[in-house]
Amino acid sequence: MTKFARVTPAGGKPQWAVEHNGELRGLGDHIPAGTHDTAWVDLITQPLNDTLLSKTTPLDRNAVRWEMPVARPGKIICLGLNYAAHAAEGGNAAPEYPSFFFRGATSLIAHNAPLIRPPVSDKLDFEAELAVVIGRKAHRLTEANALDAVAGYACFNDGTLRDYQRKTSQWTIGKNFDGTGALGPWLVPASALPPGAHGLKIESRLNGEVMQSDNTAHMIVTVAQALVLLSEVLTLEPGDVIAMGTPSGVGYARKPPVWMKPGDRIEIDIEGVGVLSNPIQDEEA
Amino acid sequence: MTKFARVTPAGGKPQWAVEHNGELRGLGDHIPAGTHDTAWVDLITQPLNDTLLSKTTPLDRNAVRWEMPVARPGKIICLGLNYAAHAAEGGNAAPEYPSFFFRGATSLIAHNAPLIRPPVSDKLDFEAELAVVIGRKAHRLTEANALDAVAGYACFNDGTLRDYQRKTSQWTIGKNFDGTGALGPWLVPASALPPGAHGLKIESRLNGEVMQSDNTAHMIVTVAQALVLLSEVLTLEPGDVIAMGTPSGVGYARKPPVWMKPGDRIEIDIEGVGVLSNPIQDEEA
Repeated sequence: MTKFARVTPAGGKPQWAVEHNGELRGLGDHIPAGTHDTAWVDLITQPLNDTLLSKTTPLDRNAVRWEMPVARPGKIICLGLNYAAHAAEGGNAAPEYPSFFFRGATSLIAHNAPLIRPPVSDKLDFEAELAVVIGRKAHRLTEANALDAVAGYACFNDGTLRDYQRKTSQWTIGKNFDGTGALGPWLVPASALPPGAHGLKIESRLNGEVMQSDNTAHMIVTVAQALVLLSEVLTLEPGDVIAMGTPSGVGYARKPPVWMKPGDRIEIDIEGVGVLSNPIQDEEA
Repeated sequence: MTKFARVTPAGGKPQWAVEHNGELRGLGDHIPAGTHDTAWVDLITQPLNDTLLSKTTPLDRNAVRWEMPVARPGKIICLGLNYAAHAAEGGNAAPEYPSFFFRGATSLIAHNAPLIRPPVSDKLDFEAELAVVIGRKAHRLTEANALDAVAGYACFNDGTLRDYQRKTSQWTIGKNFDGTGALGPWLVPASALPPGAHGLKIESRLNGEVMQSDNTAHMIVTVAQALVLLSEVLTLEPGDVIAMGTPSGVGYARKPPVWMKPGDRIEIDIEGVGVLSNPIQDEEA
């Protein structure tokens, strides 16, 4: 399977890379990889071209810095309570309409970078989620054509400061601390996965211990349905990210609660999509 | 008082303009005015320079297309329930911490452009608000230095589809229909207004009739306090917009309720900041 990533080699600039035959190969300057470039859409959605592949150079995946596959998503839209067992563990009924909220780009970091525990709260929780990355401008999609708007999928950690999430009825502020969520490492073309990324095992592991384990087949609202509901309201644009909600097993619902702390490592593992791994670190004074 | 705006003359490109001695004067190519340019920060925050002024050309304010002063804000952060009388009219207590939620840039339009009523709801309501436009990267501000991060102020209409706002506990989706909010026309330098834009009359008028009339002195959380609370959580960046909440008198709380409909015109008028005026139009089929 072909996967794509944005990486920065030591001393270099961000570039697109492709995993091909088990090897990570850099696309150098052949595909623009700047903050606002959108050439990645064609790269992800078109068949990989041999001429382009012949221009790649091998990269050491342990020596590159991983970047978010989308540098600055225009919108990061999250669904709350989209797995019935997770709604139940928080004392909520399974909703008839998703509880949408937004994250800002400043709340996200890339694979391997440290997730940041802020000085004002130690209630830092993990949430394993499937991220949908939009490939084209889309408004008023139907269930029949909704998946055409998807470029690919990625792993997402919807990291949350639980006390701030509950300061008011609006969850937004607890979901927007700097560097508390993560996206990546791979952007996997939609064509390489089942339609709507249905039926994939999704798991989070804290220091190697399984905390959440479920299957994307158990999402209440499917990817296509989420796109229909959202695009009834707003225009989706290339690079927009939709995080599809988290399964049961999050830290706050455990007895006793489990919070991420410096020295921990959290992994989000989705079958065929990859493993997003981040250490936890206290914010520097 | 010197005010700034982004405008597009007939057949031209977006450019910055300044209102000087009652005249609108275009800065042409002298200040980059593209979607991701940030040269406007210096324009707004430095004293207007005579050499620059000598390069301007007069513009007809009735012939230009008004653009949003910030083309694509990275974050648009709104405070809910920030005037006690508005909290009360919705049956809410005045909050101890603001109810923050985000809008996406696709939800906003410029001065004079039509606000869009979507086909799925006729519950389109107005909300007059003071918008704070951030001029520099800022994290962990204090009340003493918070206002240094402000470039200027603008009028904001936090237009809302009330039924969608209440579909779940999260207001975000009802605040994010395409083209239902507005920002502009002017970006007024912070130096031209009282600190924190305190003590300014704020009003909305629907077809000329006053609907909301209050004073920014009655905001529960001041601009400086909002910046302290937000920057405890996240990094503010140039072009980020913070909408400071709306006074009482909104449409849904009226008996009978008042909804904006095609043919209406809504104006947001803030003393010294300008008048943001938009007609209402149904979304095209």
